[in-house]
Amino acid sequence: MSDTTGRDDAPPAGAGDARAPLTHLDADGRARMVDVGDKPESDRRARATGAILMRPETLAAIRSHGLGKGDVLAVARVAGIMAAKRTAELIPLCHPLPLTDVEVTFAETQDLSGLQVEASVRTRGRTGVEMEALTAVAVSLLTVFDMTKGVDRTLRIVDICVVEKTGGMSGPWQRAR
Amino acid sequence: MSDTTGRDDAPPAGAGDARAPLTHLDADGRARMVDVGDKPESDRRARATGAILMRPETLAAIRSHGLGKGDVLAVARVAGIMAAKRTAELIPLCHPLPLTDVEVTFAETQDLSGLQVEASVRTRGRTGVEMEALTAVAVSLLTVFDMTKGVDRTLRIVDICVVEKTGGMSGPWQRAR
Amino acid sequence: MSDTTGRDDAPPAGAGDARAPLTHLDADGRARMVDVGDKPESDRRARATGAILMRPETLAAIRSHGLGKGDVLAVARVAGIMAAKRTAELIPLCHPLPLTDVEVTFAETQDLSGLQVEASVRTRGRTGVEMEALTAVAVSLLTVFDMTKGVDRTLRIVDICVVEKTGGMSGPWQRAR
Amino acid sequence: MSDTTGRDDAPPAGAGDARAPLTHLDADGRARMVDVGDKPESDRRARATGAILMRPETLAAIRSHGLGKGDVLAVARVAGIMAAKRTAELIPLCHPLPLTDVEVTFAETQDLSGLQVEASVRTRGRTGVEMEALTAVAVSLLTVFDMTKGVDRTLRIVDICVVEKTGGMSGPWQRAR
Amino acid sequence: MSDTTGRDDAPPAGAGDARAPLTHLDADGRARMVDVGDKPESDRRARATGAILMRPETLAAIRSHGLGKGDVLAVARVAGIMAAKRTAELIPLCHPLPLTDVEVTFAETQDLSGLQVEASVRTRGRTGVEMEALTAVAVSLLTVFDMTKGVDRTLRIVDICVVEKTGGMSGPWQRAR
Amino acid sequence: MSDTTGRDDAPPAGAGDARAPLTHLDADGRARMVDVGDKPESDRRARATGAILMRPETLAAIRSHGLGKGDVLAVARVAGIMAAKRTAELIPLCHPLPLTDVEVTFAETQDLSGLQVEASVRTRGRTGVEMEALTAVAVSLLTVFDMTKGVDRTLRIVDICVVEKTGGMSGPWQRAR
Repeated sequence: MSDTTGRDDAPPAGAGDARAPLTHLDADGRARMVDVGDKPESDRRARATGAILMRPETLAAIRSHGLGKGDVLAVARVAGIMAAKRTAELIPLCHPLPLTDVEVTFAETQDLSGLQVEASVRTRGRTGVEMEALTAVAVSLLTVFDMTKGVDRTLRIVDICVVEKTGGMSGPWQRAR
Repeated sequence: MSDTTGRDDAPPAGAGDARAPLTHLDADGRARMVDVGDKPESDRRARATGAILMRPETLAAIRSHGLGKGDVLAVARVAGIMAAKRTAELIPLCHPLPLTDVEVTFAETQDLSGLQVEASVRTRGRTGVEMEALTAVAVSLLTVFDMTKGVDRTLRIVDICVVEKTGGMSGPWQRAR
Repeated sequence: MSDTTGRDDAPPAGAGDARAPLTHLDADGRARMVDVGDKPESDRRARATGAILMRPETLAAIRSHGLGKGDVLAVARVAGIMAAKRTAELIPLCHPLPLTDVEVTFAETQDLSGLQVEASVRTRGRTGVEMEALTAVAVSLLTVFDMTKGVDRTLRIVDICVVEKTGGMSGPWQRAR
Repeated sequence: MSDTTGRDDAPPAGAGDARAPLTHLDADGRARMVDVGDKPESDRRARATGAILMRPETLAAIRSHGLGKGDVLAVARVAGIMAAKRTAELIPLCHPLPLTDVEVTFAETQDLSGLQVEASVRTRGRTGVEMEALTAVAVSLLTVFDMTKGVDRTLRIVDICVVEKTGGMSGPWQRAR
Repeated sequence: MSDTTGRDDAPPAGAGDARAPLTHLDADGRARMVDVGDKPESDRRARATGAILMRPETLAAIRSHGLGKGDVLAVARVAGIMAAKRTAELIPLCHPLPLTDVEVTFAETQDLSGLQVEASVRTRGRTGVEMEALTAVAVSLLTVFDMTKGVDRTLRIVDICVVEKTGGMSGPWQRAR
Repeated sequence: MSDTTGRDDAPPAGAGDARAPLTHLDADGRARMVDVGDKPESDRRARATGAILMRPETLAAIRSHGLGKGDVLAVARVAGIMAAKRTAELIPLCHPLPLTDVEVTFAETQDLSGLQVEASVRTRGRTGVEMEALTAVAVSLLTVFDMTKGVDRTLRIVDICVVEKTGGMSGPWQRAR
């Protein structure tokens, strides 16, 4: 993915400008959806990640149950996929989009004890799917939280962000590492 | 709130035990709801927090619009309250609970540039409301993300966790700072 | 129902006071749910009404189809009942309540050409069910609108209000006619 | 907007005919969705209005809180926008449509004490968005009702109707004043 | 479970009577919820079953994937549990109930090639949970259908029924085999 | 409809192969949506059927009430139509689709005492609508179950399957009788 156009310390045009308007507020500061009716449809993708930190014993319990069927991660994966489809019901100013693909995967975090989730979402539409990917990540992590909170009070969800998006007028973008 | 019974490095009874079962899996590792039908109803409260980090200019834009009506935080607050009420639809093994109170408040983060959200939830029921408080926090933060992502690509949601809970057999608990 | 305590030109205590706080805003004017956790459960009922005005030909078409099965009013009745159950998803600061009864009935309006709908809702809970009755009325009327708008551009929904409530500390109340 | 084709006392073709079928009933009077699969996609817009009447003191309370953040109107605006997106879940025979814009604005009513709401909705689709605009209006007004009913028993929702629509085969239309 | 009161060929009292009213219709045949507001709360349970028949190769494919994580049955189980919680949104005249337990299990059918699902639901409420158990069964089976329809056109869902219920005035009941 | 391409004992290509992958599982057996983003949009239709068996007296009660307005079948029809629109919320890996038509009809079963339901669904999209038709059938039947279970303990839902589909690359298909 060398075709990136942005670095995360380079804001979108005008974003550094203190007077730049927030896109979801009108001239009087009132909330509104952004009208995307004049944008063309294009292939849109977004990828987001996040993690949940936990005690090593908790991670071991998830891991050992993972050998059986119906484990924690299977439930969290389903929860994330289903939540992505309902993003526009949860986030007030999001546009409803007919998603053509949602994928949610887990990996163990590297430095600290925990799980990282990554969600990829795709649609053919007039606006991007970052919020759908982020919602899948957040709800997957909340589901892991729910299923492990009975044995671990140190649980903490961290670092939810967009890592890549393609499609739309602003072109492909990838978060600098 | 000196009446705390736990410190976050002291796990619930048995939690340190590698063989301790995850409460949401049956003996064969299959997902299930935890049967709370035999628990008595009691007054349950939970408080959760989380934050979103952003560029100082973005925070300034939110702040300046806050003087008008219908600002970013009002929308995010409503989104969090509404999401708390739908927690059992999003988190597969959560019990539906008739919430009696949900409150969502924002403050600026201290060290880094960003916003902290805190959600307090209350019910009279047979199980706790941590997941409802966490869901309110997550969806409030996602809503801020949605409304500011057009001007800031550095957005990152961090540190979502439960900070206090009361009610139920395990008694009051407060996260150590 | 002679046991009414109020007349509609007599506001609740303090309501005439310009400084009286709106119950759903905190001291800083921020939206919040009203905490009903300390209120006792009681038998709560509310009744609301509303109407939709239409051309006489439209009313005649509804009436004639009413002789067959599956007519406009059957659909509108079901829509109203189902909407009552989802009130807390639609109205941001409403409490979720386990409704024990919802009834929706139609009658022809007397002076003008149209239909009047009345919804009665009941629960055993810590707060009232006016909003559930009003939501049933509104969605029933919107459904009639939807099913007749193809043949009538004069449609107008009017006079949605609460006409009676019982239960709770304020006692029974009935709208003066 | 001089390009109107209709007056509200001129019914759609055939509507004055007592035998004109209601579009949402089949030949036997059974409810059905209208099949729009053969219609082309076009740019569709609709605008609807409605009002809530209240005591002058209530209006003053809303107005004074409007200077702070998170006021009644911000909550009602969000509720209306979110409801528009869920119209097809509420109104049984409505088609689901991917809305590209929803806008909700408030103004004080002129003759009587109250608030008027106007909702504008847009999509690119095979059928119109009148029901989405009407649903936004109705739920916004119900939300104002909910937040002020504690201080005012005279509340009444009135005059919900479509005022303008464009797109589709029937061409632009505007309600006569 | 010898304490059964009924055999499935023995109808509830009065049910054999041609004039016996359907409980969800009023005297004029109009749909209504059954008012359960005067019933006491009690411990309610229900168990329902159903099956999906398929080609032996399809069953083998499900079985082999079952050794990995995230298999068909895990997804179907989650879908069933989540659907049970939303029963009152789907079935128009169902009462919303705060479920305290939902369990969904699968077994292979004995005579024909297929899968049997059983759902057990519990609540403490004023009415029974048969519909919740049936809804869990139906949606679990639909989910298996969805995940295998790409490789098998013979899929057929059969024999969805209630097999046991306890609680409420009518006492325990078990379907005769 | 002579233009059928399949017989129900002829599986889709490769389906007889024990190693054929289930389309909703990835190489590691984890659940995923099927990415339909590269498929073209086409006119898609599906038809599904199912039945509910009941005692003759129950069928007679439904029939007699059918003469009045608001009968059992009208409610079940509305429930089925509304459920079809929410299929992607219920079935975890289903794609959301903007349905352009849903039709639900009832007939009495021929050999045994009961009701048969048939649902036809149409969309213009990148994937088929079998699940939407099946969901409409299942929820319609569950609604009949709910409204008659008070007078009949023999109720049983049977034979839910797809009977016809058109559109998409696999061409038209009709279930052999």
